[in-house]
This record gives sequence, C-alpha cells and structure tokens, in this order.
Amino acid sequence: VKIAVDAMGGDHAPCEILKGAVDYARKAAACQNGAAAMGPVEVLLVGDPARIEAELDEAIAHSFSLSPASADGALPRDALNLRIVPAADVIAMDEHPTQAVQEKPDSSLVVSTRLVKEGEAHAAFSAGNTGAVMFAALRLLERVPGIKRPAIATPFPTEVGGRAFVIDAGANVDCRASHLVQFALLGAVYAERVGGVERPRVGLLSNGEEASKGNELTREAHALLARSPLNFVGNVEGNHVFEGSVDVVVCDGFVGNVLLKASEGAVRLTLGLLAAEARREPDEATREVLLRSLLRIRQRVDYSEFGGAPLLGVNGVQFIAHGRSDAKTIATGIGLAVAAARTGYVEAVRDALRDHANSAAAAGAAGA
Amino acid sequence: VKIAVDAMGGDHAPCEILKGAVDYARKAAACQNGAAAMGPVEVLLVGDPARIEAELDEAIAHSFSLSPASADGALPRDALNLRIVPAADVIAMDEHPTQAVQEKPDSSLVVSTRLVKEGEAHAAFSAGNTGAVMFAALRLLERVPGIKRPAIATPFPTEVGGRAFVIDAGANVDCRASHLVQFALLGAVYAERVGGVERPRVGLLSNGEEASKGNELTREAHALLARSPLNFVGNVEGNHVFEGSVDVVVCDGFVGNVLLKASEGAVRLTLGLLAAEARREPDEATREVLLRSLLRIRQRVDYSEFGGAPLLGVNGVQFIAHGRSDAKTIATGIGLAVAAARTGYVEAVRDALRDHANSAAAAGAAGA
Repeated sequence: VKIAVDAMGGDHAPCEILKGAVDYARKAAACQNGAAAMGPVEVLLVGDPARIEAELDEAIAHSFSLSPASADGALPRDALNLRIVPAADVIAMDEHPTQAVQEKPDSSLVVSTRLVKEGEAHAAFSAGNTGAVMFAALRLLERVPGIKRPAIATPFPTEVGGRAFVIDAGANVDCRASHLVQFALLGAVYAERVGGVERPRVGLLSNGEEASKGNELTREAHALLARSPLNFVGNVEGNHVFEGSVDVVVCDGFVGNVLLKASEGAVRLTLGLLAAEARREPDEATREVLLRSLLRIRQRVDYSEFGGAPLLGVNGVQFIAHGRSDAKTIATGIGLAVAAARTGYVEAVRDALRDHANSAAAAGAAGA
Repeated sequence: VKIAVDAMGGDHAPCEILKGAVDYARKAAACQNGAAAMGPVEVLLVGDPARIEAELDEAIAHSFSLSPASADGALPRDALNLRIVPAADVIAMDEHPTQAVQEKPDSSLVVSTRLVKEGEAHAAFSAGNTGAVMFAALRLLERVPGIKRPAIATPFPTEVGGRAFVIDAGANVDCRASHLVQFALLGAVYAERVGGVERPRVGLLSNGEEASKGNELTREAHALLARSPLNFVGNVEGNHVFEGSVDVVVCDGFVGNVLLKASEGAVRLTLGLLAAEARREPDEATREVLLRSLLRIRQRVDYSEFGGAPLLGVNGVQFIAHGRSDAKTIATGIGLAVAAARTGYVEAVRDALRDHANSAAAAGAAGA
C-alpha cells in the first residue's frame, strides 16, 4: 500500500507532518516483521524536496528520541519506506479553495490527490485547507457513480469507548432527504469496513426521538431510511451521539458542523475548568494527579486526537485532518487512511449502492 | 411581584419543586429585610392542595436543616409569603402537549400560565411537559403583536464566566430568515434587561465565520441582521458559543436543540471520565480533591443547574425548566423568572419592535 501525505498542508507543516509520517512509518516497518504483518506501506511525502530534506532527518531523530530503538530496532532512514514526491507549490490555509486548486495544480495538496487518481497511491492524506482538499478530491477522484454528494465522516468519542461516525460533518450545507440517505449508506459501509462494526446502527440526528419529531428535511429522510435495507434505529438527539447507542449519525453538513464545533467547545470549556482546578491545587503531588487525569481525559475526548476524517463517496481514499494536528494525530490519521485503502472501502460502497438499487427496485415491484 | 409555580410539573414533583420554592421564598424574605430590598415576592404554589400541604412542611424543614436560621433568622412558614392555588389536574411529562392543554384546563401547568394572563401573577414557572408549557403560553398569553414565532432562550456557560443566550433552543424547527431576525431581537432585549448586558453582541450560528458561509436560511438572515439596528457581530461557530465573545446566539430551533443536546452530551462524557478517574484513585485524600473539583466544574457547566429558560415573544413571563431539575435549580429558575418580571421585559420587547419597525421604515424611505 502506498499513501500520499501532503507534507506542506497544515498549521504546523512540514515539521509536524513529517514527524507524524516518520512515526507512522516506523510502526509500519516494525509491524512488517511482526505477526500482524499486512504487507509493506510506502509513505510518499509530497512537497518541496529541499524543505522536506531539511526537516526529515530532524523528524527521524525526534522520533527516535521519544521512543528509542526498542522492539522495532533502530531503523535507518532507508528502512522506513519513505519517498519524497516533489510538488513545487503550496496552498495556504486561508486561500479560496476552488480558486487555489485550479490555479495551483502543482501544489502538494493537489499532487497528493492526483497520485491516488493516477494509481500511484492508494490513499491521500492532508491537514491542509479543508475546502481545497474537498474540491481537489471531487474534481480529480470524482464521485462514485450514483453518489450525489460526497460527505465527511467524523468520528466522535463515546462513553462506552467506541466511536460514532457523524456524516456529513461539514461538506454539504443544504441537503435533500435523498442526500441524507446516501450519507447513511456511506457511513454504514465505512463503519463496517474500517470501524469493524457488524450491521452498523444508523441514527438520524433530530430534535427528538419520536418519528414525528424533526424538521421537514429529517422527517422526509426518516421515512426513506425506514424503508431502506440499512440498520436504521430511528431519530437520535445530540447527546445520544456520545452514548454509544449508534454507530453512524446522519445529518446535513451545516448541522454536522454545529454538532462537531459545539462538542469541541463544550469539551474545551470543561477541560479548561479542570486545568484551572489543577493550577489552584497547592499540593504538588495532588496537582500531578489532576494533570495526569486531565491528559488521559483529553486523549479520550479531544477531536484533534482522532487523526482526521475521510471524504466518503469519491473514487478513492481521501483523508482530511484538522489544520492544527500534531505529529501524533498525523500518525493516527495516516494509519486510518491506510486501513481504509486496505479494506477496499470504495469497492464496498459500489456494492452497497447496487444492493440498495436492487432492493429499491424490488420494493417498487412489490408496491406495484 | 407574584410568581406562579407549577408545583406538580417535573420528574421530581411536587417534592423538589416545593423544596426549591421554599428555598427561593426564604432568600426573598431575607432580602426584604436587607439593603437590596426590591419589594416582596409572593410564591403561588399551583397544584393539588392536599399533596402540597402534605409535603410543604417537610420541604420547609429540609430547607432549614440545610441552612438553619442564620442571617435570615428562623422564618416561620407564615413569613415565607407562600400561597397555595388549587389546581385539580396534572399533565404528565409524556402526554401529547396540545391535546393535554386542551383537555386539562384545570391542570397545575395551565392554571399557572392562566394566572399570568389574568394578572394574578407576574410570571409563571414550570418544570413540566415542555411542549405543553409552550402551547399553554402561546394559547393563553398569546404573542406580542408583531412577533411571528415565540422562541426559547437557553443560557450557555462561557469560559469567561458569563452566559450566552442561545435562541431558539427548540421551539421552532422550520424557520424563515425573518424569524431568526426576531429571535435576535428577543434575545438581545432579554440579555440587556435580564442579563444586564449593554448593547448585547448578537452572533448568527453558522458553519464558518465568513459572511459567505452558511446555508440558504442563515445567509439570508445574515444579510437582514447586518442591516438591523442590533449589535450584530456576524457568524459564529458552535465552539464560539462557549468563548464569551457573543451574548446572544441566533439559530433555528432544530439547530439550537442539536447545539444544546450535543453540548450536554459532550460535558457529560467528559465529566463521566473525570468521575472514573476519581474512582480509580487509590489515595483517599486525593480522591476527595478530584471529587470536589468535579463538583465545582459541574456547577459551572451543567445545564440543569441554570434554572430554566424563558419562552420569549409571548405577552408575559413564562419560564420552562428541565423536567429533572432539583430543588436548587428550581430556586435559581424562580429567581430568574422574578427578575424577568421585575425588569419589564415584555414592555421592552414592544418598544424594541417599534424601534425596529421605525428604523426599517427609515431605511426603506432612504432606499426609495
């Protein structure tokens, strides 16, 4: 498997991106020698070769300083299966997405995605300008035939320890009910293939659990989902997302963005108060306990730790990470993108679309 | 000031409602003798007299056991300014709202609101069936002339310690842009009168800060708000609600409900993890510190502690509290309802509507 990593995209690029890529590459190289070997992974670092060269050795040194040669042995750079793919241009975080993609075909962001289109990579990963990544993926990879609107599936933490995938988390603001049904399908196939969940439970985000609750859009989507072959469990409310009672939460991208940002804000507020409690604690040993608790909780609930989210519904694996991702997040995200490529997610979506079409045709015939 | 409290509404009614009402009445009675005296408050306990009588003495005893005669002196029941108003019926939490209100005109919920309509009370407060409270208020108090859709203004905690009022938090699922503009007006007048904020900053909830971001509804509302005399600061995202950068956050009731429930869920998840950290802590003294921190944080961020939210835009003060509210929440909520009645909120809305109409007319004349 080959993964194209946009080395120049993100608030802390290329430094944190390279560190994350190196960390991932080390783990991948170590696994190859282990029992869980799944074939080699080559990480393509896409960007300005001079800048990447200048920072790569430091990233490798950093990685080894954190966890020195241990189980994986002291791997030299050559064994890490990294390759630099030159890209002359960079798209900034605040550039206009469509314009930037059109005007900078040689940017690291666009080249990463083009590598997937041309079969040179099996997945692309970028922490750069989110709108530009989406537009590049839509334009270069194109939609899976039959899919109207590709959507972003963002993992949310749950009380029981798993993840709920919220789709769409921000790609499409104005949606029709048929779009929501496709989001449900895309999310369910993803939760099954990549999340390893059997017959994922799909919930429709609404303002009440009863089928009669919701706005015009969700009431119509509810009726369509109830007739679909998906494992639809009905309406869910914002708090249910965190309870572990559903695997996929469907909503339009406007509402999904509000859900994501509100949750981030509420978590940040709560953890900020815990940090203040720690600062006020006079006893040093107790303060240490508070700070360690804070760190462990943050790892469970901080969205930026989750590694990124896939854009589902395009012909290829495209991951989008938060601009402020650090090395650890990048390493996690690259791993998720590789997993999505390995499990044949895109082919599974095509199969599921065919099944749905057949079942709709059968339902139509039965109704006639 | 007289406040009608639905003694039979809520998951823990009448017990917690009476305890909360007694706590509030004690504070109010104590204040009357103090420097901050603002005139007496009479609390009308609406419900089944036999059940209220049976539990009221216990509620008073409970209140005094928590904070025995101290600054306020040991007030006998007569000095508490409580009065029982009989209501023969009760609307259950899960009854169909409109049907229940129509079929049970003598329920504690409906009678509480009717007392406001008939001038027998200055505010009504209920922790009962939310839909029924809204319907009763709409039907009995009616809308302020010119207001199309009354809306719920829910206070959210912020990092800087104040509150942001989110309006609409759930009353209207499908809205037009002109409705959102009215929500902004209702929320701004409330934040000014009851929240004590001068020229409240109004933000429009969207999926990005730029004016071009949003769905069809919010983009249209953005243009209208930008032309209004309100202190409109532009689009805000879900996380900004908690940052203290705006006083009023405007959205439709569907999105507002998602925002509220998602925040509740994220806070619950985070505090649950902190509780688990405390349980795992072997040292007893350290565990106590963790638990005390948890308690203090919860008081800052738990929505059920905020006392309830007003239904704005009707001809009278109507507060709605969460069904699971405990005595402390009820006491806080009654205080908020009294404050809203005292500050002449409803009259201020009428004035603001006239100002807006004038400024719109002036803008129209200038444009012509």
